Amino acid sequence: MRLRNKPWAYDKIKEHPDLVIPEPQNYNGRWQQEIFKNGNPIHLEIGMGKGAFINGMAKLHPEINFIGIEKYTSVIVSALELTLENQLTNVRLLNIDAGNLSEIFAEGELSRIYLNFSDPWPKNRHEKRRLTYESFLAMYEKVLAKDGEIHFKTDNQGLFEYSLESFSKYGMLIKNISLDLHRSNIKENVMTEYEEKFSKQGNRIYRCEAQFR
Amino acid sequence: MRLRNKPWAYDKIKEHPDLVIPEPQNYNGRWQQEIFKNGNPIHLEIGMGKGAFINGMAKLHPEINFIGIEKYTSVIVSALELTLENQLTNVRLLNIDAGNLSEIFAEGELSRIYLNFSDPWPKNRHEKRRLTYESFLAMYEKVLAKDGEIHFKTDNQGLFEYSLESFSKYGMLIKNISLDLHRSNIKENVMTEYEEKFSKQGNRIYRCEAQFR
Repeated sequence: MRLRNKPWAYDKIKEHPDLVIPEPQNYNGRWQQEIFKNGNPIHLEIGMGKGAFINGMAKLHPEINFIGIEKYTSVIVSALELTLENQLTNVRLLNIDAGNLSEIFAEGELSRIYLNFSDPWPKNRHEKRRLTYESFLAMYEKVLAKDGEIHFKTDNQGLFEYSLESFSKYGMLIKNISLDLHRSNIKENVMTEYEEKFSKQGNRIYRCEAQFR
Repeated sequence: MRLRNKPWAYDKIKEHPDLVIPEPQNYNGRWQQEIFKNGNPIHLEIGMGKGAFINGMAKLHPEINFIGIEKYTSVIVSALELTLENQLTNVRLLNIDAGNLSEIFAEGELSRIYLNFSDPWPKNRHEKRRLTYESFLAMYEKVLAKDGEIHFKTDNQGLFEYSLESFSKYGMLIKNISLDLHRSNIKENVMTEYEEKFSKQGNRIYRCEAQFR
């Protein structure tokens, strides 16, 4: 994604601490009670970009609490604007890096993790940065409830091949694989901004679910 | 594959009992000693068709014993002719159905199984006929040595998706996935007749390895 410098983004985010939660580690183990004030399951999207996916999902699923994380301030500000526009009460945003999940969530606090169009890091020497590398899987396993799932979409063939192998090596159960999502029988598919643009060009989207067992 | 009626095929096969082994169940547990007369590992191809793959592999790997099975007499006769032409001593052919492997091979007698372009049986009610259905995997596990592998290639997207899920559900380790074999960095790929024709049309070939663990 192209990053634009937005000097006003920090201030905009600070104006909405109820949506973009500052110091999220303070709510470790208490997201349902203190933030959402309900007992609904929590689904996390890592690298939500401008928030089209999480907003679309939150509209379709008011019975789920959604948290989106995005490390770039200049990007998360667009997700904030969209969430404000949609007046959604079941969405919260975190301006953090994916590496700190276990400081922010207690063991088993999340029910599902979405990884959409993550950075492929194609060079072998960057393998450890891929969000489906085993150290990330170990972190996800910790914060996910028993039988918790990762739902994964990408247009990057190499990342998808790598991720299937990584899920398998970790002992996860791989389910609902689609090697061409937009030409298969899908019931519900909320698109990301990137997916919308990319699939219009006729390119394939790969998708699967991986469950810890 | 289009089947032609070849009334002479039976006779041709009977003329070469040293290559197309009659009553293969008689050699259960003794393929190395009695048939190949060496201690080399045995690789099995299920549904070898006209034998291009097994012949190509046998030429490249004289240190491996290859057995190809094919249920159609009118098809296996072409594999026989090719094997005679190539004067290969490390190839044997069986005119049988895949369902009887455990009568023919002892536990752990095989080192690898190749499944190339197996019938996709796309209808849900035919799932049990797919060569990567769990009952087949259980049979393969029995006749394969510890850490034995299945090497699987297909052009059929649905069968590949299904097979990855089936391998995962069975608890197998999935390795070396390629979602577009002919446009990836492969060191060695011996093509089947079908693969040659199909990939020339620009279609994708899917490939993976699955190991029992």
